[in-house]
Amino acid sequence: MAASNAKCTRLTGSLVKQLLDSIDSVLFDCDGVIWRGDQAIPGAPDVINLLKKNGKRVFFVTNNSTKTRKMYADKLATLGFNASEEEVFGTAYCSAMYLKSVAKIQGKVYLVGSNAMKQEIENVGIQTTGVGPDPISGVQIDWANVSLDPEVKAVVVGFDQHFSYMKLNRALQYLCNPSCLFVGTNTDTRLPLEGGKAVPGTGCLVKAVETAAQRPAQVVGKPSNFMFDCVAKQFGLDPARALMVGDRLDTDIMLGTNCGLKTLLTLTGVSTVADAEDHLKSGCPNRAGMVPDYYIDTIAELLPALQG
Amino acid sequence: MAASNAKCTRLTGSLVKQLLDSIDSVLFDCDGVIWRGDQAIPGAPDVINLLKKNGKRVFFVTNNSTKTRKMYADKLATLGFNASEEEVFGTAYCSAMYLKSVAKIQGKVYLVGSNAMKQEIENVGIQTTGVGPDPISGVQIDWANVSLDPEVKAVVVGFDQHFSYMKLNRALQYLCNPSCLFVGTNTDTRLPLEGGKAVPGTGCLVKAVETAAQRPAQVVGKPSNFMFDCVAKQFGLDPARALMVGDRLDTDIMLGTNCGLKTLLTLTGVSTVADAEDHLKSGCPNRAGMVPDYYIDTIAELLPALQG
Repeated sequence: MAASNAKCTRLTGSLVKQLLDSIDSVLFDCDGVIWRGDQAIPGAPDVINLLKKNGKRVFFVTNNSTKTRKMYADKLATLGFNASEEEVFGTAYCSAMYLKSVAKIQGKVYLVGSNAMKQEIENVGIQTTGVGPDPISGVQIDWANVSLDPEVKAVVVGFDQHFSYMKLNRALQYLCNPSCLFVGTNTDTRLPLEGGKAVPGTGCLVKAVETAAQRPAQVVGKPSNFMFDCVAKQFGLDPARALMVGDRLDTDIMLGTNCGLKTLLTLTGVSTVADAEDHLKSGCPNRAGMVPDYYIDTIAELLPALQG
Repeated sequence: MAASNAKCTRLTGSLVKQLLDSIDSVLFDCDGVIWRGDQAIPGAPDVINLLKKNGKRVFFVTNNSTKTRKMYADKLATLGFNASEEEVFGTAYCSAMYLKSVAKIQGKVYLVGSNAMKQEIENVGIQTTGVGPDPISGVQIDWANVSLDPEVKAVVVGFDQHFSYMKLNRALQYLCNPSCLFVGTNTDTRLPLEGGKAVPGTGCLVKAVETAAQRPAQVVGKPSNFMFDCVAKQFGLDPARALMVGDRLDTDIMLGTNCGLKTLLTLTGVSTVADAEDHLKSGCPNRAGMVPDYYIDTIAELLPALQG
C-alpha cells in the first residue's frame, strides 16, 4: 500500500506483478518505447503479445501525425507485434475524430499537414484542400487577398515538411474569420532522432500559426485529454485500471496524470529519471503531473512477470 | 505642470508648443505615422521639414526589415520628406549594427531574411549565407544532417517570404550549438495592410525558430531598447529631450517608455485611444508602458504650432 502512494518508484520485483494485476489496459507510446526508428526495442514484441495473452487490452498512442492507422499497423506487424489498426491512435486519426465527433465540422479543412492526415480526415467523410508545396508569388497585398475556399470551416496544423510562409499566410487568412476552427495535432517542439540529433517538431508550426492568428489552437495530441478520451470512448476504458507507458514526461506521463491513469516511464527514449526527480523535488503543482508513478529501464523488464 | 504628469492627454492648443519646446529630437515610426503604404499622410512632409527648420533633429525608426536605409531614404525623398540615409534606423540596419558593435561576431551569419538584410549586414563587413528559397528533400535524418557552414556564428531571423520548414530546420541545426548567437529583428505578429487586411509578421517566424531552438532570440527592434540606443549613441541624444511618435502602443509607445522618452500616439495607424485607455485603466504595471503621454488624430495637427 505504501508503494502505491510513492511516486517515481523503480518498477521491480513483486511490484511488477502488483501493477499488472491492478490494470486491464495498457497504452503505449511508440517511438522510444516499443521501437526506436525502424528497430523494435528488444523484447518489446513479446511484452505486447504476452500482455494480450494475459487478457490485457493494448493500445498504441502516438503524437506522430505523418502516418495513418494502417501504416502503423503495417509497421507493428513487420516488427513482430500482434496488433490491429483499431488499436492505433495517432494524431492524424485523432484529429479526424475530433473534427467529426467533437467539432462536427460541416465543410472543408484547410490542412497544413501530411498525406496521412489528408487520408484520415477524408476517411471520416471530411474534405480537405489538399497537401504539398504552396509557393509564394506577388507582393504583400496579393498574399492578403490570396484565393480562399469558402467551404473551409477549420484549419488543422500537423507536421508538414512543406510548411512555408504562404501556408502560414493562408492559415491566417482563414483564421481571421472567428468562426473558423483551429486545431493542432500536437505541440512537440522537436522530433528526436538517433544519435542525439533532432529536427523541428509540429509545435514550431502550431506556434507560428497561433502567433499570426492571435489565438490558441485546440490541441488533440498528448498531453491533451482528447487523445485518451478517444480510446476510452471506443473501448469503454476505466482510467483507474489503465496504465500509460511512455518515454516523455511532458507528453506521455502528463497525459496519464491528466486522465487519472497509472504511469510508467521507460528509459529507452527522451526523458531520464533525473528529469522526473527534478519535477518531483520542484514542489511545483504544474510539474507534479510530469512525475511518473514508476520507471523502468526498458519495457523488456516486464517479461519475467508476464511469462511466470 | 499638472498636464505633464497626466497620461494619455489629447495634444492640442498650447500643449503642442509646450511639448515642442521641451524636446530637441523626434523619432518617428513610418508606416501608419508619416505614410500609409505608398501615400504620405497629408501634411506629414511639411511637419518633418518644419521640425528640422525649427532646429529639431528627426529620425525614422521602423521595425520593417525588408528595406535598407538607402531604400527608405529614396522613398522619403519621393514622398517629399527632407531626409537622409543617416536618419533612418530600420531593423535591417540595426541588426547589422548589433552584430558588429554589440555581439562583435567573428564569422558568418545564417540569415532567415530579405535581400535588404543581406545588404545591410554585408555593409558592416559581415558575410551571410545568402537569401532565397531553401527547398526540402530527403527524409528526417537527411534534414538533421543538412550541410552547415562551419563559419556561421549567428542566426538572424527577419521577415522572409521564403520561410520554410527547411530554413527552420537549418536554423535549429546551427542553434543546437549553444555558442551560436540568435538574433530576431522584431516580434510584430502581423503586418497590417490597407482595408483591415494583414499578413503574418516576423514575430511568427521568430517564434517558430525560438520554439525549435528552445531559447529566446535577442530582439533588436522596438520595443527593445537597442533600437533607441543605436540612434542615441550615434547622435548623442538626451532621452529626456526626445519624443517618440508612433501608431502602435506595444512597439512604438513601449519603446519610448522603456527608454525614458516622451511619447505621442497618432491615430492614423493601428492603435486607438480606447486601446490606450484600457491599458491605463488596467492598473497593470506591464501595461502602463503602453500608455502614451499624448495622442493626436494625425501628425498634421502639429503644423500650426510649427508654422506659427
